[in-house]
Amino acid sequence: MSAKEWPLHGGQPAPLLARFGLADNTPVLDASANLNPLGPPTWLADWVSARLQGEALARYPDPDYREARESIAARDGVAPDQVLLTNGGAEAVFLAVALHAREYPAAPVAIVEPTFAEYARACAAHGLPVTRLTLEPPDFRLDPEAVVAALGEARLLFLCRPNNPTGTLMPQASVARLLELTAERGCRVVVDEAFIDFVGSADGKPAAGEALAPLLSRFEHLLLLRSLTKHFTLPGLRLGYLLADRDTVRHAAGCQPAWSVNGLAAALVAPLLADRDFAGRTEGWLATERPWLQAGLAALGLEVIPSRANFFLVRHPEGREATRQLLPALLRRGVLVRHTESFPGLDGGWLRLALGDATTNARLLAALAEVLREAEEGGS
Amino acid sequence: MSAKEWPLHGGQPAPLLARFGLADNTPVLDASANLNPLGPPTWLADWVSARLQGEALARYPDPDYREARESIAARDGVAPDQVLLTNGGAEAVFLAVALHAREYPAAPVAIVEPTFAEYARACAAHGLPVTRLTLEPPDFRLDPEAVVAALGEARLLFLCRPNNPTGTLMPQASVARLLELTAERGCRVVVDEAFIDFVGSADGKPAAGEALAPLLSRFEHLLLLRSLTKHFTLPGLRLGYLLADRDTVRHAAGCQPAWSVNGLAAALVAPLLADRDFAGRTEGWLATERPWLQAGLAALGLEVIPSRANFFLVRHPEGREATRQLLPALLRRGVLVRHTESFPGLDGGWLRLALGDATTNARLLAALAEVLREAEEGGS
Repeated sequence: MSAKEWPLHGGQPAPLLARFGLADNTPVLDASANLNPLGPPTWLADWVSARLQGEALARYPDPDYREARESIAARDGVAPDQVLLTNGGAEAVFLAVALHAREYPAAPVAIVEPTFAEYARACAAHGLPVTRLTLEPPDFRLDPEAVVAALGEARLLFLCRPNNPTGTLMPQASVARLLELTAERGCRVVVDEAFIDFVGSADGKPAAGEALAPLLSRFEHLLLLRSLTKHFTLPGLRLGYLLADRDTVRHAAGCQPAWSVNGLAAALVAPLLADRDFAGRTEGWLATERPWLQAGLAALGLEVIPSRANFFLVRHPEGREATRQLLPALLRRGVLVRHTESFPGLDGGWLRLALGDATTNARLLAALAEVLREAEEGGS
Repeated sequence: MSAKEWPLHGGQPAPLLARFGLADNTPVLDASANLNPLGPPTWLADWVSARLQGEALARYPDPDYREARESIAARDGVAPDQVLLTNGGAEAVFLAVALHAREYPAAPVAIVEPTFAEYARACAAHGLPVTRLTLEPPDFRLDPEAVVAALGEARLLFLCRPNNPTGTLMPQASVARLLELTAERGCRVVVDEAFIDFVGSADGKPAAGEALAPLLSRFEHLLLLRSLTKHFTLPGLRLGYLLADRDTVRHAAGCQPAWSVNGLAAALVAPLLADRDFAGRTEGWLATERPWLQAGLAALGLEVIPSRANFFLVRHPEGREATRQLLPALLRRGVLVRHTESFPGLDGGWLRLALGDATTNARLLAALAEVLREAEEGGS
C-alpha cells in the first residue's frame, strides 16, 4: 500500500471510497478536512450576492490589495507593507520557497516533520533537496538547539504551528530561541500559522502571549504564513497571507502572478476580520468541544495527542496495523477520517480526526466505539 | 518620465488621476482594460447566489478540477489530461516559466515584443535573462525564420496571439512554421491566446482555420495559454487554463500550489462554456463595433493598427510627444486609455484603446475629437 495511491489532502471521499470498494455516492460525515463547523459566517451569502449585482467580479482586483492589507496589518500589529495577500495559504508556501530558490538555487530546505505536504511539494517544484527533521511521538517536541544542529546547509526552514497533523504548539519562547540561533546562520524560518486562530487557550480566552507577529520586528528572517479560510470555513474562496519584513514582502510580491487573489476574497478580508462575534463563538466552541472530544477519544482507549488545533492525532494502542484498519471500517459506517500514509514520520500509523460540532463529534465517537468493539470481538 | 512610475496594467485610474493632479474620485469611462462590455452573463449573479446557500465556498475545490477540465477538453478538442486549470491567465504564464526554469535554470527566455508585461515579470521572478525580439510598426509582422535566427540560447519563447497591445494575429501557418523550426532547437513555444475568443472574422463568423489547438497533437513543445475572464467579463474571478501535451501538463501541475483555482471559478467553467448565446452576441458586437471604431479613429486622423482583438493600438500622426499628450487630455475629460510607457518597442509612443459597447465607443471618439481639435488650435 504505497503512500502515492492515497489522496494528499483531506476532504476527498471519492478516492478513498473507490479504494475500499464503496459506492461513490455513499454519504460521508467528513472528519478529514480541518474546517470550522460554525462557518461560513451567516452574513456572507447575502454580502456576496449583493456585490454580484455590482461589479465585484467584472473588474480586475486592485493589484496591490491595499484595503485588505490594511485590515490585516491593523489586526496583527504590523505595517501594511509587511503583508502580502496570497491565493490561499498554499500560494504563500510556494512563494516562500520561490524566494529561497532565487537566492540559493541548490541549498536544501529543512522541514520539521511530520507536517503538511505542500512544503515538500513546493521544494520539488523547484528541484530543491529537502532535509527532514522528524519529531518523535508522543509529544513531538521541538528542541531549537537540536534543529539548528541538524540544519546542515539549509537556508530555509519550515515549521507549522500549531502543527498539522499533530496539533502541537511550539512555545513562543522556543520559536524565539530558534530565530536567534538561525539568524547567525543566515537561514530563513517560515512558520505556517494556518491553524493559529484555533489555538485558543485552556480557559477559552485568546492566548496573546503565544503570538509570533511581535517577533517580526526583531527577526528579519522570520516569515509567518496565515490562512483565513479554515477559521471562516471558506476553503473554496482561497485566501491567505504572508507576514514578513518589508523587503521580503516586496521580493515575494515579485514572485507572485498579477491579481493572484480573486476579487471576492480580497473584498471579504475587512468584513471577515471585523466579525468579532464569529471569533467569540469559535472560541466558545473550542473551549467546550475540544476537551470533550479529547476525553471521549481517550475513554475509547485510543492514544490521543493533546491538541491546540481543531483536530486530533490518534492511534490504536495495538499499533500501526490496528490503526490502519480503523479508516476503512469507519468509512463503511459513513465517517471519513484522515489517513497519515503521506506524512513522513507517521507512515500510516496514526489517524487525524477533525474537531466538529457537538453532533459530529458524538457521531464520530459512536462510530469509533462500534468499530473498536467489532475489532475486539473479531480478534477475540 | 520613467516607465516605472506608470501602472503596469490597465483598469487602474487611481495612479493616473494622481499623476495628472485630478481628484481620485473623478468618474472615468474605462477604455484601458480589455474586457467584453456585454458581460458578465446575466444568469451569473443568480447562479452564484444559489450556490452560496449551499457549500460552494465551504468546501475545498476538487484538487483535480475534473469536471472543469472535461468541459474545456470537449470544447477545444483535446484530452482532459492536456488541460490545466489556472488562477487566471497570469498563473499560466508563471507556470510556463517555472517549467523552463526547472530544466534550464540559466537559459534565456525569448519574448516577442511589444507585448503583455507578465512574461518578463515571470522571468524576473526566476532570475532568468530575457531576449527581446521586437516587431516593428506598422504591421508588427512576425517572420518565423527571423525569430528563430534571433533565439540564441533561448529554450522558451513567448508569443501573444492576438497580440496585446498591437491587436495583430499571427497566421496559423506562421505559427506552424515557427513550431517546425523550434522543434529542432529544443525550444518550447508558449502562445498566449488570452484574447483568442475575440478574434472573430471579417464576416462575424468564428475563424476555425485560425485555431492553434489542433497543432498540439503535432508539436509537444507547444503550450497554449487561455483566459476565460476577459471574454466573460469576470476578471475578478480569476480563471484561465493551459493546454499542452500530457507530460507537460503533469509537470506544470507539479509547480502549482494546491487548490490554486477557487471553487466558484472552477464550478463556473462548464456553464460559461455552454452559453453559446453569449458567444453569439459577442460575435455580433465585434462584427459591428470593431470596424465602426476603427473607421472612426482613422477618420480623426489617427494611425490605427487593424485589430483582431477587442482593442486598438493608435498613435498621433505627429509622433510620440503628440500621442503622449492625448492621455492626460482624455483623462481630464473622464476617459481613461492605456499608456504604452511600459511596453518595450512602443515606449509611450502609442495608446491602447479598448473596444467598448456602442455608447462607450461613441463617447471615446467624441472625447478624442475634442482633444485633437484643441491640440490643433493650441498648436496653431
